[in-house]
Amino acid sequence: MSHPILVVGGGPAGLEAACLLGELGQSVVLVEKSDVLGGTPIQSGYAALTPDFRDATEAFTELAERVRGFDSVDVRMGTVLTEAAGGVGNFSLSLSGGDTLQAGAVILATGFQHFDPGRETQQYGYYEFDDVVTLVDLERLLKQGTLVRPSNGEPPERLCFIQCVGSRDRQIGNEYCSKVCCGVAAKQSIEVRKLLPDCKVFIFYIDMRMYGFWENEIYWPSQEQYKVNYIKGIPTQVIARGDKLLVRGEDTTMGRPMEVPMDMVVLSVGMEPSAGTREMAALFGLAQDKYRFIETSGGALDTVSTTVPGIFACGASVGPADFEDCVSTAGAAAIKAMAAIRNTVGAA
Amino acid sequence: MSHPILVVGGGPAGLEAACLLGELGQSVVLVEKSDVLGGTPIQSGYAALTPDFRDATEAFTELAERVRGFDSVDVRMGTVLTEAAGGVGNFSLSLSGGDTLQAGAVILATGFQHFDPGRETQQYGYYEFDDVVTLVDLERLLKQGTLVRPSNGEPPERLCFIQCVGSRDRQIGNEYCSKVCCGVAAKQSIEVRKLLPDCKVFIFYIDMRMYGFWENEIYWPSQEQYKVNYIKGIPTQVIARGDKLLVRGEDTTMGRPMEVPMDMVVLSVGMEPSAGTREMAALFGLAQDKYRFIETSGGALDTVSTTVPGIFACGASVGPADFEDCVSTAGAAAIKAMAAIRNTVGAA
Repeated sequence: MSHPILVVGGGPAGLEAACLLGELGQSVVLVEKSDVLGGTPIQSGYAALTPDFRDATEAFTELAERVRGFDSVDVRMGTVLTEAAGGVGNFSLSLSGGDTLQAGAVILATGFQHFDPGRETQQYGYYEFDDVVTLVDLERLLKQGTLVRPSNGEPPERLCFIQCVGSRDRQIGNEYCSKVCCGVAAKQSIEVRKLLPDCKVFIFYIDMRMYGFWENEIYWPSQEQYKVNYIKGIPTQVIARGDKLLVRGEDTTMGRPMEVPMDMVVLSVGMEPSAGTREMAALFGLAQDKYRFIETSGGALDTVSTTVPGIFACGASVGPADFEDCVSTAGAAAIKAMAAIRNTVGAA
Repeated sequence: MSHPILVVGGGPAGLEAACLLGELGQSVVLVEKSDVLGGTPIQSGYAALTPDFRDATEAFTELAERVRGFDSVDVRMGTVLTEAAGGVGNFSLSLSGGDTLQAGAVILATGFQHFDPGRETQQYGYYEFDDVVTLVDLERLLKQGTLVRPSNGEPPERLCFIQCVGSRDRQIGNEYCSKVCCGVAAKQSIEVRKLLPDCKVFIFYIDMRMYGFWENEIYWPSQEQYKVNYIKGIPTQVIARGDKLLVRGEDTTMGRPMEVPMDMVVLSVGMEPSAGTREMAALFGLAQDKYRFIETSGGALDTVSTTVPGIFACGASVGPADFEDCVSTAGAAAIKAMAAIRNTVGAA
């Protein structure tokens, strides 16, 4: 009898990996450090998934219930991994609370954290102006079903998104693209227009990264059906003018400076590796990239193997990921973890 | 004893799925209609993978050899599926050549075909001018290790890429983005500059969709290290002028018409569902999207389940996909196929 597979993290990728393994009758221990399953979408209060607008709470509640329904899956909440030794087929692990565990393989699904727009992007006034919010804050507002300006409780008449906050930016050290923020902004722009048909919505961008079917599923409808205005050019500054915000920058298509009044400004903050991702990489001695995401070891043809045999990583622990990436890589990690055990201990 | 899993298609996704199942000792029949494994990258003569520049022949030869090395995997070349009946746990299948097969589940990895730039994009002169080629043609030229103008055998001094040929285009009916062409063009632009340091290289684009780490791994280096010129604006016409090509359009950043002489023009053709993808969808009665890719049934949280239980699809059969998508969805399809059999016939 082989040891269970340890899944670290109860977000979208970790839940999916545990669910797939549970369906095969594989014994799994899933540890989640918080007291809730569902990961960032639940903890940050996402309203709806990109790109399909499915209710986030419903989606991840259903997935969590499926995971909890398997006899072979042991879900341990409020639990973190504190020590690790051994190798593939026989990892010796210590958990918070004093428990120990032998595991045949480990799947890390420890995810990302949102970029904090207080750091080097303070020209946008996130900590200064109530009406400057992030994508994450807007999800939470949309989830409540009413959208008003935090400063005065009135519905905004003009709202804009500023893309690439904390991404594609050498100054702050995040040269990569966070992949999902364009899609999330387009999705949210549709939700804002549905909720407040009189609110004018603008998206300031460098390139709209609406890859694959996001193009026809959310980008075109946002422009054609919901009349969202896309303006190529990233603002350099947000200042207060009376009870409005003034967004300053350059419209690079029109080739002229712009200064546009807004009631609300939404900062499309990018993805950085979570504390859990950085901690697990250190605990297992995994290679990390310069941004401290977990590095995969097989180039374009292996999205989940780490530099340590028997340890696999999926979801946003290896870099910016959309929901489709999370569930696809969870599947790849799950089957590779099973194969790693089988190749080590033999067919049980 | 349960029936084998049938994998249809021996390209990147099909090989990866068969390999993962082989590692678990799962019996698999892989059918490939051509006489070569590796799929489009091999059949179209790709030089190197995007984004990691790995030699394509080496990568897929290695993967094919691993697949052939499993006792439980039966690879049948020059074989197509001609009839299907039954359902999950017990599909009754007929193969070309008269063989029949019982399969517990089916994984479709039948891929895409490149958009043919002869159709509604004839203003670019693909069938008129020798020096107008596609991304695919350029891969083949790069694989030879020398790059010369097809018209006169001289190395090009000025070469440009035109993005979104056959994608993001309502006129031709392909509103979606083909996802990979920006990355492939950026990769090829680096290869051209390495091979011909005196050749000036331009990329005409709408949005550069260098999502995630493609941004820092290929886009930034192509601009900073290899001095590739990116110009926002899609040309409307390519004409001949003496022994040069003239590319006409509008530079939307500069806001002015442009007419630029080139020695070679590369059309970044998009992805459409392959004949095999369309045929398998019809054979199994699967829902397809309006572009005739196979439709997945679970929204953002299920990338491989089709509308028929026991039939899974991966890689570019479900829509534009990069190599990472192909191997990740292959993993997800493989483990879901095993689970589908187990849930139907019980634990063996």
